[in-house]
Amino acid sequence: MRQRVIIENVKPQVNAGRYPVKRTVGEPVNIIADIFADGHDAIRAAVQFRKKGAKKWEEQLLSAIGNDTYAGKIQFEEEGHFEYQVTAWIDHLENWYNGFLKKQAVGQHLSVELEEGAIMLEKVAATYSKTVAKPLLAKAKQLRDKKGYQENIQLVLSDDFRQMVAEHPFKQFVTESDRKLNLLVERKKALFSSWYEFFPRSASQERGKHGTFKDAEALIPRVAELGFDILYFPPIHPVGEVNRKGKNNATNAQSGEPGSPWAIGSKHGGHKAVAPELGTMKDYEQLIKTAKSHGIEVALDLAYQCAPDHPYVKKHPEWFVWRPDNTIMYAENPPKKYQDIVPLDFECDAWESLWKELLSVIIFWVKKGVKVFRVDNPHTKSFNFWEWAIAETHKKYPEVIFLSEAFTRPKRMASLAKKGFTQGYTYFTWRVSKGELQEYMTELTQTESRDYFRPNFWPNTPDILPYHLQGANENAFVMRLLMAATLSSNYGVYGAAYEFVDNHGNSNGKEEYQDSEKYEVKYYEWNRRNRITDAMTKINQIRKENTALQSTWNITFTNTNNDNVMSYIKRDENGNTIWCIVNLDPNNVQAAFVEVPKQLLGIEHVNLRCHDLLTGQYFDWRNDWNYVELNPSYYPMHILRIE
Amino acid sequence: MRQRVIIENVKPQVNAGRYPVKRTVGEPVNIIADIFADGHDAIRAAVQFRKKGAKKWEEQLLSAIGNDTYAGKIQFEEEGHFEYQVTAWIDHLENWYNGFLKKQAVGQHLSVELEEGAIMLEKVAATYSKTVAKPLLAKAKQLRDKKGYQENIQLVLSDDFRQMVAEHPFKQFVTESDRKLNLLVERKKALFSSWYEFFPRSASQERGKHGTFKDAEALIPRVAELGFDILYFPPIHPVGEVNRKGKNNATNAQSGEPGSPWAIGSKHGGHKAVAPELGTMKDYEQLIKTAKSHGIEVALDLAYQCAPDHPYVKKHPEWFVWRPDNTIMYAENPPKKYQDIVPLDFECDAWESLWKELLSVIIFWVKKGVKVFRVDNPHTKSFNFWEWAIAETHKKYPEVIFLSEAFTRPKRMASLAKKGFTQGYTYFTWRVSKGELQEYMTELTQTESRDYFRPNFWPNTPDILPYHLQGANENAFVMRLLMAATLSSNYGVYGAAYEFVDNHGNSNGKEEYQDSEKYEVKYYEWNRRNRITDAMTKINQIRKENTALQSTWNITFTNTNNDNVMSYIKRDENGNTIWCIVNLDPNNVQAAFVEVPKQLLGIEHVNLRCHDLLTGQYFDWRNDWNYVELNPSYYPMHILRIE
Repeated sequence: MRQRVIIENVKPQVNAGRYPVKRTVGEPVNIIADIFADGHDAIRAAVQFRKKGAKKWEEQLLSAIGNDTYAGKIQFEEEGHFEYQVTAWIDHLENWYNGFLKKQAVGQHLSVELEEGAIMLEKVAATYSKTVAKPLLAKAKQLRDKKGYQENIQLVLSDDFRQMVAEHPFKQFVTESDRKLNLLVERKKALFSSWYEFFPRSASQERGKHGTFKDAEALIPRVAELGFDILYFPPIHPVGEVNRKGKNNATNAQSGEPGSPWAIGSKHGGHKAVAPELGTMKDYEQLIKTAKSHGIEVALDLAYQCAPDHPYVKKHPEWFVWRPDNTIMYAENPPKKYQDIVPLDFECDAWESLWKELLSVIIFWVKKGVKVFRVDNPHTKSFNFWEWAIAETHKKYPEVIFLSEAFTRPKRMASLAKKGFTQGYTYFTWRVSKGELQEYMTELTQTESRDYFRPNFWPNTPDILPYHLQGANENAFVMRLLMAATLSSNYGVYGAAYEFVDNHGNSNGKEEYQDSEKYEVKYYEWNRRNRITDAMTKINQIRKENTALQSTWNITFTNTNNDNVMSYIKRDENGNTIWCIVNLDPNNVQAAFVEVPKQLLGIEHVNLRCHDLLTGQYFDWRNDWNYVELNPSYYPMHILRIE
Repeated sequence: MRQRVIIENVKPQVNAGRYPVKRTVGEPVNIIADIFADGHDAIRAAVQFRKKGAKKWEEQLLSAIGNDTYAGKIQFEEEGHFEYQVTAWIDHLENWYNGFLKKQAVGQHLSVELEEGAIMLEKVAATYSKTVAKPLLAKAKQLRDKKGYQENIQLVLSDDFRQMVAEHPFKQFVTESDRKLNLLVERKKALFSSWYEFFPRSASQERGKHGTFKDAEALIPRVAELGFDILYFPPIHPVGEVNRKGKNNATNAQSGEPGSPWAIGSKHGGHKAVAPELGTMKDYEQLIKTAKSHGIEVALDLAYQCAPDHPYVKKHPEWFVWRPDNTIMYAENPPKKYQDIVPLDFECDAWESLWKELLSVIIFWVKKGVKVFRVDNPHTKSFNFWEWAIAETHKKYPEVIFLSEAFTRPKRMASLAKKGFTQGYTYFTWRVSKGELQEYMTELTQTESRDYFRPNFWPNTPDILPYHLQGANENAFVMRLLMAATLSSNYGVYGAAYEFVDNHGNSNGKEEYQDSEKYEVKYYEWNRRNRITDAMTKINQIRKENTALQSTWNITFTNTNNDNVMSYIKRDENGNTIWCIVNLDPNNVQAAFVEVPKQLLGIEHVNLRCHDLLTGQYFDWRNDWNYVELNPSYYPMHILRIE
């Protein structure tokens, strides 16, 4: 009760500490808090932090930044769960010292103050170890020397003394912030990753042939050449045979049609098996190894749903909903029914055995070498299940990454991130205009969202060919790719369809592919290279070489005088500065003046050498506003390194 | 773990429930929360609330208002501490019912659905009492009648059935919000009060004579006539004689000077005594009674500081700071010293006995009939002390009101309100321009501040004569008074000095009075009436008759085309609508067009009869924009009741 300091509003925090703030290894956490007390006394504050489970706090002093706000920075070079809190106290040593300086400045007589200082130093000394206490006690003794009044005044005014005060917080009646806040530090790939997706069924270099793991493995050097570091396949499990969907989502497959890989399970097995037409488990494990040798991780699609002939249905009927006529409940969104899928019932009486089995699926694949999961429609499964399953996985395997495919309403999307998903798909896919893009990036990077939701930008997915890419030209594909890869440090692309500029919207009028690869085997000329593969190769190389592009949070939009030309700068603590200027119009050359943000760059006069990393050109800019002209048929973007 | 619904971001809340949300009796609490689940199932949500200590929750369903947000309203007709939480669940009855309607609409056969409905109703029935269950079971039985297929479809489609579903929440796996939130309901005067301050030392009707409680008592009918309901005196305790301040804050009083009443304590006693020159304790108690009979409460000034000759100093030296030369520590803000005051040390080893004594001061006066305290400089005493002392007082006397005189930095001001102060002085005193006033009111009423900080607007205090009133004319005094009384439902005025237009700024250049009443006895012609007393009388009457002016939260600023003319509307749930239009320029007539806010008033076409409650005039407005002209020498404000 003798604490006089109040601490409020400690940030960052997510739901008042209910969920952890997320960072990656080496990424700073900027701590900020409102701290004040009654009266005029000097306050000191510190952030305390420790690994979860550790007893001892580490501590770092905070600085006052005005308006009763204090700030500091912590960062961690190790993965794991950490906690932090803010502490603060009236520092009577500093208080006495400040008062002394003020009184001395107006010429007051300070004998009593010197004696007070001596007493104070003795009290401070008593809170420290003998070694630390020794010089404090020596100074205390000196201050008591009545003959040396002038010398003692000078002693207190000395730099030495100032430093001694600064370095010896005098903690009494320390206030702790209301609650310990949680921090999760994950590996760097959680924030910086480049995903490439293809269907192994379409990996064959021979037209009309069903691809295999071996075919996919043969494409790995190509993926590495393009510069991607995560290779993601749609589900690789046996495809359901009952109520199998045909081409273009036809209700019933014709004989020989491969079905949707997301309808999982058949007599060949379920979520722990591989589809026989793709090869053997050994083949898959070999593919993972080959990928690894190319610096690529293989991501598994975690789709917790079953075809009606999934082995679970017979073995664990208690995990499904059965209707009064003894038929199984299909997935439905009334009045629609999805008869190739039966959903698992997360509320069933046997929920414990169900949850354990689902967790065991993750662990099964982790043991095979999979450390990255792309999770299909997580927003149609219990959110509390995800929180539990991800935490359980991370207990032993903290390096595992979960990408949430939740194209859903904002609050559900956010909640999944809070529950533990490492990354999330985003609305980038549908943000097209300069206004939309800037507003969305601001929401992602400048609000509380930044502390838990790591965006992953995809221009397309097998489910989504957005309207603005339907019928669009190559320029648009290059432009959206370059934007995804420079706006967000996590990005991905549904590869072959994108590279080969599949712009055929579904005749049903939705934002889907016509003749979607979800329901059929495709043939791609995997040896072909074009403007899109060139852009992929270059941008992935640029991302690797420029640390500013390895974070999403460091973006600032800057001014242009043309709504078709968007400009943004990414800048990191090492001074790496990348200025992106993009022509949002895929059909016309656009020119603009762009303003040099002098304050952001910390310069007074403009004298910039800009190196365009796509074209190799150099621009020398000496004016506040500079002219740019972007031909979308060449490169629709400048990616300038400021040198 | 089977809970599938997530509840986040329940509002209102103050510091995640650490402090209570504040309301007065009958004032609604609008509850809002983010609520969502996986999938597409129907969700129901409720707010639960109860008096602290009660076992049983009361409950009210919330409504979905879009974007996964749910809203509802609770209110209390009784003072006290309450708590509330939000609960939500997948409602499988509603879910089945919604699905049934959708399937029926597209003509699906629904035999199995009817049977599912019967089973569902039986399950629902099992969660209710026998009486409630009976009709549910009857309907379940009917749905099973296979011969009556068409009749049963019609049964489900009936209004009866819809109502039955609506009225029978089917609770399973209920999610509760993260924490119980606290609510403090106080008496109506906490939000609606009109304060009048004078120094009893200046209450004598005889020039040059020191006023007494009896003189003050004689002025009570006058205060009642002006329409105020709280009468506040500066401290009434014995004034310190050691280091007493003289006229205009002179370091040493001349013999016979009365000193500052805020330097409390002398050989005549301390905080539980009255100054002998004012009369006896009996006189004071009589004054309280007389005030009460006029509908007025008497407020005591709670100033926890001591003159050097306060009895505490000798009796409880352990509550003060003593210097190494055995002198007592005066109040100081280095290099300044305040030698008429010695501060209590809230950190002292004997803090417990000190805190108890200070609490006993409050209780002493409460027992004398004081239910309102104006607390002097609370931001120079331990905030945790206030939280404890106010809570302790409220345990037995929940009706006690504490007004915080904390003219300090925003976060400290806010914190004192959170710690328990009922009302707080504000920056209104210095908000002069239209932009400043609108911004400040928006901050007070539209942010989280609204849930804990109740503003009390004062145009002046004995400590503060703001620059804009120094040398100002009567018009300015009328204008600031009317604004204080209409912007904020709590307002007050340092009366006689204001009424008699004391506009003499201190020659020290500060925002203080020249010849401040703090240090001397003044003579006022208490019988005089003028434009200010007229405005006081009228505005207090208008406030009593118009409930819209009895709240601070219901304000909306509306458009005018003149920056010197500010317009705002207050509107309450009973439809009482008061439109204030004020000329902010005390020297010139100002004219403007003001816009009728049709959406706010819920009208499509303008046809308003406006009754000016100050002048009695009527205006008929039929246009979207209407002309007003305000002569500050008459009334600088229209206070229009919309009829």
